[in-house]
Amino acid sequence: MAKRTGIYPGTFDPITNGHLDIIKRGLRLVDKLVIGVATNPSKDPLFTLEERVEMVGQYIDPLASEAGVEYEVVQFDELLMKFAERMNAQVIIRGLRAVADFEYEFQMTGMNYQINPNIETVFLMADPKYQTIASRLVKEVARYGGAIEAFVPPMVAKAIVEKYAK
Amino acid sequence: MAKRTGIYPGTFDPITNGHLDIIKRGLRLVDKLVIGVATNPSKDPLFTLEERVEMVGQYIDPLASEAGVEYEVVQFDELLMKFAERMNAQVIIRGLRAVADFEYEFQMTGMNYQINPNIETVFLMADPKYQTIASRLVKEVARYGGAIEAFVPPMVAKAIVEKYAK
Amino acid sequence: MAKRTGIYPGTFDPITNGHLDIIKRGLRLVDKLVIGVATNPSKDPLFTLEERVEMVGQYIDPLASEAGVEYEVVQFDELLMKFAERMNAQVIIRGLRAVADFEYEFQMTGMNYQINPNIETVFLMADPKYQTIASRLVKEVARYGGAIEAFVPPMVAKAIVEKYAK
Amino acid sequence: MAKRTGIYPGTFDPITNGHLDIIKRGLRLVDKLVIGVATNPSKDPLFTLEERVEMVGQYIDPLASEAGVEYEVVQFDELLMKFAERMNAQVIIRGLRAVADFEYEFQMTGMNYQINPNIETVFLMADPKYQTIASRLVKEVARYGGAIEAFVPPMVAKAIVEKYAK
Amino acid sequence: MAKRTGIYPGTFDPITNGHLDIIKRGLRLVDKLVIGVATNPSKDPLFTLEERVEMVGQYIDPLASEAGVEYEVVQFDELLMKFAERMNAQVIIRGLRAVADFEYEFQMTGMNYQINPNIETVFLMADPKYQTIASRLVKEVARYGGAIEAFVPPMVAKAIVEKYAK
Amino acid sequence: MAKRTGIYPGTFDPITNGHLDIIKRGLRLVDKLVIGVATNPSKDPLFTLEERVEMVGQYIDPLASEAGVEYEVVQFDELLMKFAERMNAQVIIRGLRAVADFEYEFQMTGMNYQINPNIETVFLMADPKYQTIASRLVKEVARYGGAIEAFVPPMVAKAIVEKYAK
Repeated sequence: MAKRTGIYPGTFDPITNGHLDIIKRGLRLVDKLVIGVATNPSKDPLFTLEERVEMVGQYIDPLASEAGVEYEVVQFDELLMKFAERMNAQVIIRGLRAVADFEYEFQMTGMNYQINPNIETVFLMADPKYQTIASRLVKEVARYGGAIEAFVPPMVAKAIVEKYAK
Repeated sequence: MAKRTGIYPGTFDPITNGHLDIIKRGLRLVDKLVIGVATNPSKDPLFTLEERVEMVGQYIDPLASEAGVEYEVVQFDELLMKFAERMNAQVIIRGLRAVADFEYEFQMTGMNYQINPNIETVFLMADPKYQTIASRLVKEVARYGGAIEAFVPPMVAKAIVEKYAK
Repeated sequence: MAKRTGIYPGTFDPITNGHLDIIKRGLRLVDKLVIGVATNPSKDPLFTLEERVEMVGQYIDPLASEAGVEYEVVQFDELLMKFAERMNAQVIIRGLRAVADFEYEFQMTGMNYQINPNIETVFLMADPKYQTIASRLVKEVARYGGAIEAFVPPMVAKAIVEKYAK
Repeated sequence: MAKRTGIYPGTFDPITNGHLDIIKRGLRLVDKLVIGVATNPSKDPLFTLEERVEMVGQYIDPLASEAGVEYEVVQFDELLMKFAERMNAQVIIRGLRAVADFEYEFQMTGMNYQINPNIETVFLMADPKYQTIASRLVKEVARYGGAIEAFVPPMVAKAIVEKYAK
Repeated sequence: MAKRTGIYPGTFDPITNGHLDIIKRGLRLVDKLVIGVATNPSKDPLFTLEERVEMVGQYIDPLASEAGVEYEVVQFDELLMKFAERMNAQVIIRGLRAVADFEYEFQMTGMNYQINPNIETVFLMADPKYQTIASRLVKEVARYGGAIEAFVPPMVAKAIVEKYAK
Repeated sequence: MAKRTGIYPGTFDPITNGHLDIIKRGLRLVDKLVIGVATNPSKDPLFTLEERVEMVGQYIDPLASEAGVEYEVVQFDELLMKFAERMNAQVIIRGLRAVADFEYEFQMTGMNYQINPNIETVFLMADPKYQTIASRLVKEVARYGGAIEAFVPPMVAKAIVEKYAK
């Protein structure tokens, strides 16, 4: 049996319960899971790259160890397919929402197939109860002082609130 | 019978015939309708907040009085659910287009249910003939000197033309 | 304040947790809620019309009494808009799923607006965790001996299992 | 590393180039791939269950042997999740089309998560050039004497033509 | 300039105001418009093939003569692309609804491109006010005695009512 | 037979194989095809207006001459419908993707019908194998040094690479 490495890419600004649900599912599919944290300076993230990498690591560690799967949290600032090649990954993991920015996914996946036909993209559906959570909206809620404990892990909620308190 | 208060939130930059159709429908559902005009400075509106509040008021007044329903036009710059709580509203009213930015609606509504499960979001479908009208496109048409009388009330059309004439 | 009567129509073969979520939400919008149980002989229902009316009644009763709202469970075999007129309803309530047979809803609502422009159709979004439940699939699962307790109330689950045991 | 078994379920009436594309992709994700051929008597298939199982086997054999992956073609007439449990599968593989009967997929997957939360459903996107191929339409084309060589393997095309010649 | 022939295929059971809107638009695109009336016995039509051909002819005649375009109403019971070839058509015209059975259109068009790459499929968007009209729903409304004058031409409305009166 | 003029508008920054597929199809529908290159300064294009006009011209010339159809490449910075009127066009040609920014198309077309009801918008479906190509993503891939030869003509690929090399 070949060892399978998968990549779950994202900005994770910040990581949400929805991301964690996809990570939990992705850990079942591969022997090693690389969480690729995109630098994404154009989106002007709330958390620095270092903070995002650390937050992701903190939450994947117990999940990966429970699943008995190797993992790595790696920042990247290059074409996803190049990153995947560099990581020797065979699989890209994407979350699929019932109503999603599917046009982007459809186009990017079609183009990625042509860039490297040996790397598969798989879509996982989050638990319906997590599908309405989006990092962008969590931040919008927090900025106006709304409660966000239902959407992100407790420590992340605290960190977001602190960011906006500054 | 409990008194029902509903909120119809938006930027209303400017109010269109599509908004007016939703308002007319919304007036049938509640005993008091609050039109919440979002400050939305990030969208760099064509009309000032004061102009938008005034324009909305001018058009809702005859509709509300015909329907025998109380109304208020209120600007807001806070989380929608907090605004709803402050207004003692039980219902949020949203227009539903056949092809809409449904992802945003789906996510926001799902998250709002967790923020305050006692406030219901109801979606109303505009008359199909108004569904293709979007404030953003009306302005695009007007900026290039196109006719917009079919999309907005006469006074609003005049105001838009004046804005771009400056 | 006018008394508002709403109709929530369906086949309810059988009633699911998703239906109950919409009913709970609908009870907040109206002063009287009529659950219209469509005879629907063409769909060859698993439960007889009488059984469906009874099951619906059993579950709406505590909800309506908690909400302090009048209700009625009524079978109908006529055009929805005619049924609504006969019931003196001003509002039709429909559940809205993230990915739904929206074409049918869009067309039917557009045509209904022309048949009777005084009756509003409002769409309510079920809690995301109930959005994946469909009566048709619950029956499919049950027919093959799968567990359905997560999708329907306990008594309904028992009744379905008994139907297929025959 | 745990051995991963995946199931790719379908009616395969008949197998198309689109199915083969998904199978090729699925073979990269698992150590053993079970093609589950649904009996599906209600759909009144063109090919008998035996013919479908045989056709699928004929085409998966070279693909699986090239990929070095174990495979099995198994007919089933039970709940998909029960079939998956019986096969000791951890993964269900589904093809994802840009515009698909996504409602069914979304609902079924959500319900399957509740039936057995340990079995993951993964969606794979077929090469865009195969996404417009549907067994149902291939048969429609063939029934009227149209050419179908672009949509199914040569032997399948021949078999379909023979069926309609009877 | 080459003479362009277009085909607008359908069951037309019966022809609606939405169909007529597409026909009016289609007449601008071609020098000859063939309305292809599908026999479609499997759908168990309300009107016989002869009645449908006659109804279509009655309404296209004044429109075509106003547009100065040649037309023909032709029944067909073969593959659409074969019918198009037989009619020497270069263009297939399809109505496009905001929310449509787009999967079928997407697949059929993709397959048709492979069957005959020289015949183009063009999609026309009906006026939004006609997009909610579907023959199937018009019949559903009429069967229960609802008013259908807003959806079909007067003579067609009369004919439908007569059918159901029998 | 009237002479038909069609407009295919876009930013073409740069022209892709998908655009060329639509152009090839559009050339069959009209006697003269105007490629309208939008100035679009707000999108901060990679290629100057002059470069884009030249690139488009270089690729449409052989296609138009093969089709025996007149063509013109014209830059425009005005309302599309005004541009169409100035060009004496009767037809606007738009590419239709399976999953597209259909909301914008639906709204713009609906509003355009009101601005000038004599100009038809027709949607053409690109070959599925070109549907995943988007100028925006081609540039994203190129910026990170990925291969783009599969998405754009060779000279365009070279030009893009040169732009990012600066």
